[in-house]
Amino acid sequence: MEFSSKFLENAVYEVSQLPGIGKRTALRLVLHLLKQPERQTEELTTALTNLRTQISYCNNCHNISDTEICEICANPKRNKSIICIVEDIRDVMAIESTSQYQGLYHVLGGKISPMEGVGPQDLNISSLVQKLKAGGIEELIFALSSTMEGDTTNFYIYKQLEGIEIKTSTIARGISVGDELEYADEVTLGRSILNRVPFENSIKAN
Amino acid sequence: MEFSSKFLENAVYEVSQLPGIGKRTALRLVLHLLKQPERQTEELTTALTNLRTQISYCNNCHNISDTEICEICANPKRNKSIICIVEDIRDVMAIESTSQYQGLYHVLGGKISPMEGVGPQDLNISSLVQKLKAGGIEELIFALSSTMEGDTTNFYIYKQLEGIEIKTSTIARGISVGDELEYADEVTLGRSILNRVPFENSIKAN
Repeated sequence: MEFSSKFLENAVYEVSQLPGIGKRTALRLVLHLLKQPERQTEELTTALTNLRTQISYCNNCHNISDTEICEICANPKRNKSIICIVEDIRDVMAIESTSQYQGLYHVLGGKISPMEGVGPQDLNISSLVQKLKAGGIEELIFALSSTMEGDTTNFYIYKQLEGIEIKTSTIARGISVGDELEYADEVTLGRSILNRVPFENSIKAN
Repeated sequence: MEFSSKFLENAVYEVSQLPGIGKRTALRLVLHLLKQPERQTEELTTALTNLRTQISYCNNCHNISDTEICEICANPKRNKSIICIVEDIRDVMAIESTSQYQGLYHVLGGKISPMEGVGPQDLNISSLVQKLKAGGIEELIFALSSTMEGDTTNFYIYKQLEGIEIKTSTIARGISVGDELEYADEVTLGRSILNRVPFENSIKAN
């Protein structure tokens, strides 16, 4: 692509650095901004700058938060003896939207992934182990993605728990609600049979 | 979606104002920026601010340009007696990439679209008519999209040409190179038969 303006070329280049956005989409977005009032571009850049420079993380669970302790950790109604380990804030938001969980979270900030150069020291694992050693936690729920990286991370953390007495669990893997059995993959279907639950439980959940 | 941070919520909102980007994609993009070095967000916001505040348009053809007269209009090798009317800079870039056109352009900045509240006065039409009245232009090529808005705009401009002696043409509509006849729509196929060209022309073009 040849551009008639360095400013345009530069803006398109920077926008196309975002994941999943190619040069053509970037050009479309940038031309859209040009057609809108200047105010819109200002608001966008101010919001991004504020986010990047003023963002902070909860001292306790490492979730994104504007206060030192996030709302979830500060809520006296939450059960502080259960911790759910998740990858990032999107998983916290997803679990919160179910209204089924009343414990606290611990946000790792990623998964162990040698391919992407992410090791255990890049994640919030040591603070988790410290928290568990300090006592008062009864159950640890592993809620990472069901991928090789997720399983590796689960296993690494599990190994760190040696000598700490704590109940551990993982979220259930199974057939999605509303899905047809014949289209499910064998691994998922196999797990959902192995980990079957009493029929009364499924009635209660509805 | 409930956010744990006002900064995050604000950034996601502003990014999701861009066309074709929903809240989920916006959250993904914003979290990506948070994981990258602060420098990347700075470069992005600076590029967008520079574009929006320092962009200028060619005085002659209204194309985006860093100079008062764009490179195409300033090029002495271009044929200044032919003008090709296009909608926006993307069309200029598309035609330039074919290397088949040596004339100048006139960028309208949009199409007449009552549905979106765009009338003739919002487009660069009066400057085009002035340019044509001043003389020296032999041919005007209409190269707008083949949609109802494009046709309306073409017709509006054509009406403005009354009293001006000038040759007008539109780019050819027909079957795409490499396309199979059986999958072409009837209107396109019909036009490509009506506007058939001497066989020797198609040999020369290859």
